[in-house]
Amino acid sequence: MDVLLCGDLSEAEWCMWRDALCEAMPDTRWLGLQEARLRPQAVLAAVVDNPDPGCLQGWPSLRLIQSLWAGVDRLLADASLPADVPLARMVDPSMTRAMQQTALWAVLALHRDFFGYARQQAARQWLARPQLRAEEVPVLVLGAGVMGSAVAEVLRGHAYPVVSWRSAEDPAALERALARARIVVNLLALTPRTRGLIDARFLAALPAGAGVVNLARGAHVVEADLLAALDSGRLAHAVLDVFGTEPLPTGHAFWHHPRVTVLPHVAARTDVRGAATVVAENLRRLQAGEALLHLVDRARGY
Amino acid sequence: MDVLLCGDLSEAEWCMWRDALCEAMPDTRWLGLQEARLRPQAVLAAVVDNPDPGCLQGWPSLRLIQSLWAGVDRLLADASLPADVPLARMVDPSMTRAMQQTALWAVLALHRDFFGYARQQAARQWLARPQLRAEEVPVLVLGAGVMGSAVAEVLRGHAYPVVSWRSAEDPAALERALARARIVVNLLALTPRTRGLIDARFLAALPAGAGVVNLARGAHVVEADLLAALDSGRLAHAVLDVFGTEPLPTGHAFWHHPRVTVLPHVAARTDVRGAATVVAENLRRLQAGEALLHLVDRARGY
Repeated sequence: MDVLLCGDLSEAEWCMWRDALCEAMPDTRWLGLQEARLRPQAVLAAVVDNPDPGCLQGWPSLRLIQSLWAGVDRLLADASLPADVPLARMVDPSMTRAMQQTALWAVLALHRDFFGYARQQAARQWLARPQLRAEEVPVLVLGAGVMGSAVAEVLRGHAYPVVSWRSAEDPAALERALARARIVVNLLALTPRTRGLIDARFLAALPAGAGVVNLARGAHVVEADLLAALDSGRLAHAVLDVFGTEPLPTGHAFWHHPRVTVLPHVAARTDVRGAATVVAENLRRLQAGEALLHLVDRARGY
Repeated sequence: MDVLLCGDLSEAEWCMWRDALCEAMPDTRWLGLQEARLRPQAVLAAVVDNPDPGCLQGWPSLRLIQSLWAGVDRLLADASLPADVPLARMVDPSMTRAMQQTALWAVLALHRDFFGYARQQAARQWLARPQLRAEEVPVLVLGAGVMGSAVAEVLRGHAYPVVSWRSAEDPAALERALARARIVVNLLALTPRTRGLIDARFLAALPAGAGVVNLARGAHVVEADLLAALDSGRLAHAVLDVFGTEPLPTGHAFWHHPRVTVLPHVAARTDVRGAATVVAENLRRLQAGEALLHLVDRARGY
């Protein structure tokens, strides 16, 4: 089988993926965009990492587009994406565990005020802060998909009282949950319904001193509203892995804000070996005519 | 029963403890040092938080000294401590959970390089670092007492390969364990055997790029050796909750070292309600003539 492998990849990254995929599927030919264009009718599937818009047009035999990322909002924004080809997103246990680690680290740091201690260290201040029990720190997890559920589970395992909210629920349920949350962790998919959800009204519904962790998409947050809530002291701290513009522009206020932790979109990077195994399984299913895994509902957006 | 409550406590802290202890044991009279000295023969037990040396002399009826802290090295350093009175240390599940949280936070941060990302943020640098799986990050836990065992257990639950070392084991076993460890977490008791354990030789036995987490006692570490290992780049980062001198002196190099995280001895603060329950149970056992809990072996030092 000929498979197109393309996207926002350096040559070294492309080779790394090709090697990992070859190991997982030795009988498949992995082609770059230029090579594949020489005989487009042979390409049965495309494995893609944020490809440029238009890349996925003109493949008459294409029967599967497999993303190497969990979030497919960028792919779906490409109007030229063939509407009749099944689209699968990456659901990889290694990636899910990486997300659990990042979320747990951020929640522990907010709960035990380790970001506050880092500020104290910069000021050479030796001062103990109140120590709450996990049972006293309610956490609201936005999103109940693969990532959201896995994060809620690991937090519950550490005794945090966790409430999960899905975007299909009504806004009144969200307001009630916000009023009780000390920490919010966002793991929603980006859809028209969730874009800009974390705005001034959302933040005003949180109790004073709450923390926000955004591990989903930058466009979920109205950045000016988040900055205002931090500057007013209402919000204690924000841990942000994703931004409206990535890389985060050098002049952006988030970089040097004392109550913002900036991560360069690394909460859960695709794990090459884990992802190659997932891709191999879906391509095997494609060849065998079995049901494909992790298909995206394009109307829903994830 | 009259019980002495004393130590390194402000008036507000003394009252907080007295209130919590009163709630746990309503029939007990809790006396400060001055009040208790008026009728020393009535004092059957002392509940202490790092008391000044000499405080525990001159109580003819004393049958239990109950520390509010897990580590009793400061108490044992008091030559005037009555040799024939049982000494109990604090073993409180809330405190153990707080220690698990701090250790897990530090290990997650070292594993996923969140301290490195904080340095990048200060330099406004957007750069992904390698993402290892927990299975690829061996952790060496020094100490296998209540705290060490609990920390090893929670780290194993997150898939870290954990090796535990107790001070009774031979140094060759330690050198072998160090050679394989990517992160070391110290939870040893401070004894003549463990004082100064983390020295140049210890640090040289670790692979390059390792991290050290000290949640036990400052005197376990030869601070100059640790600084040298950090400055040479051999050690990637140190998370230090305890120091040779506390509070850490303003001029100390740890405060502003980019590869040192300073915490003001807060990894596991005594949880007032949890500890009051533990004290109440031990005092009940004292009155009932039952076996006391958490007694210190003074020869061993913990």
